[in-house]
Amino acid sequence: MHHCWFNGTIAEASDTQININDLGLLRGYGLFDYFRTYNRKPFQWDWYWERYERSAKLLKIPNPITKEEAGEVVSQLIGLHRQGEVAIRFLLTGGYSFDSVTSAKPNLLIISESIHYSAPADYYNGIKVMSYEYVRDLPTIKSIDYKHYMILQSELKEKHAADVLYYKDGEISELSRSNVFLINGHKLITPNKNILEGITRRTVLELAKGDFEIEIRPVGFQETLDAEEVFTTSTTKRVLPISRIDEHVIGSGKIGPKTQFLLDKINDLVKNW
Amino acid sequence: MHHCWFNGTIAEASDTQININDLGLLRGYGLFDYFRTYNRKPFQWDWYWERYERSAKLLKIPNPITKEEAGEVVSQLIGLHRQGEVAIRFLLTGGYSFDSVTSAKPNLLIISESIHYSAPADYYNGIKVMSYEYVRDLPTIKSIDYKHYMILQSELKEKHAADVLYYKDGEISELSRSNVFLINGHKLITPNKNILEGITRRTVLELAKGDFEIEIRPVGFQETLDAEEVFTTSTTKRVLPISRIDEHVIGSGKIGPKTQFLLDKINDLVKNW
Repeated sequence: MHHCWFNGTIAEASDTQININDLGLLRGYGLFDYFRTYNRKPFQWDWYWERYERSAKLLKIPNPITKEEAGEVVSQLIGLHRQGEVAIRFLLTGGYSFDSVTSAKPNLLIISESIHYSAPADYYNGIKVMSYEYVRDLPTIKSIDYKHYMILQSELKEKHAADVLYYKDGEISELSRSNVFLINGHKLITPNKNILEGITRRTVLELAKGDFEIEIRPVGFQETLDAEEVFTTSTTKRVLPISRIDEHVIGSGKIGPKTQFLLDKINDLVKNW
Repeated sequence: MHHCWFNGTIAEASDTQININDLGLLRGYGLFDYFRTYNRKPFQWDWYWERYERSAKLLKIPNPITKEEAGEVVSQLIGLHRQGEVAIRFLLTGGYSFDSVTSAKPNLLIISESIHYSAPADYYNGIKVMSYEYVRDLPTIKSIDYKHYMILQSELKEKHAADVLYYKDGEISELSRSNVFLINGHKLITPNKNILEGITRRTVLELAKGDFEIEIRPVGFQETLDAEEVFTTSTTKRVLPISRIDEHVIGSGKIGPKTQFLLDKINDLVKNW
């Protein structure tokens, strides 16, 4: 059973509703953040909080809660989820509006959710992604704007692709909800712009120090096709190999040894979190 | 008092709520349309319905209602609004989702709302708009994505601007929620791309036939500053003069005679609707 803290009150998530004059719903004016527990402790809480605050500032929605208060709410939600791991979503909207534009105060929801895991076989076989020419609007903000990804759902199914790889002007940026890395020899390469800076991306960059030469820079689409290994990082996926981009096979078509090395590293980290 | 039809049930709008796992709220996956009554009859209903259906198709959200059923709901909502004119909003979202991506069916809300009128003086003095370099994402779809306009609210207040004028690469497109026209001599000019095709724009183009030479084509930003008259069109504004773009004064700085002519024409049309 999952719960939701909404402007100060906790109730069952399935019983929580929002008025229809919310600016998130009427104007797409909202942002979120999303993290999960390991050993029932929030993973990288400080980094997620930092990003949530940054998104709110950039989208000009005043954040109504302190880090300490939010941390207390998160603890309560984890406690209410009796056992096992759980995901937590912060959803901050422009708030209720009488005229569809102005609002007196934002709405903040903090929601516990089930974690949707990738299939175990994907960690061996890798996933297929479909390329799509697009840069997310205001990509550094974790806004709720996923309309392009939603529109692509039927095409992804037809092409048996698990996700979309955004590129523009010959450069890749990110997947719909995760970052991308390339490996060539001892180089670990990831795009530096038009991306949401993922917390797992940041974690992997920390973990890779010492073992890889790290390059954070523009990354070409062709360069990605030609890479020895390609993988994606996200809160729920951790380190997940990409073995196909459209009809092109990456490397061996399975997880590569260096991706496996980084996956093992992050698995070790979360095991002892 | 206003009402809302939500998936088949009518209730007071202020009592209507939506579950927090709606894809409009979680993923910005939604669209709307918006029209008003004159003489308690929906203005240009056929054209609004056509646009609503087109938006739904382009955003790949299946429209769950026929035109006849929707027309009946609209009549009921107008009837429940005991007297005077009313605005009607159609809001169609991706629907409820257990995993924040997939959904079994969309959510449709049809809501009656107060009409927010422009100040009478604005029809004489014109409004000031602030230029902003941006093209709306998927501009031909009336999606709920207004985050840029929402972010600009404080800057608009500081600059005493009533709205924003979007431009990109030296060409204008539209205001936040309305179209733009220029008048030079007997030419009536309006942009042809990167816009939402407004129903009032379409109405004005019909009304202007015979009196103006109409040009629907790319329109330069400088050309707009240099125009004899500039005005904007929308459901609630009808024909509203623009007298200032940033610190630049258009024409006389008041409503021009040809804008007044078109305003009178549309006022005549709606009076007898």
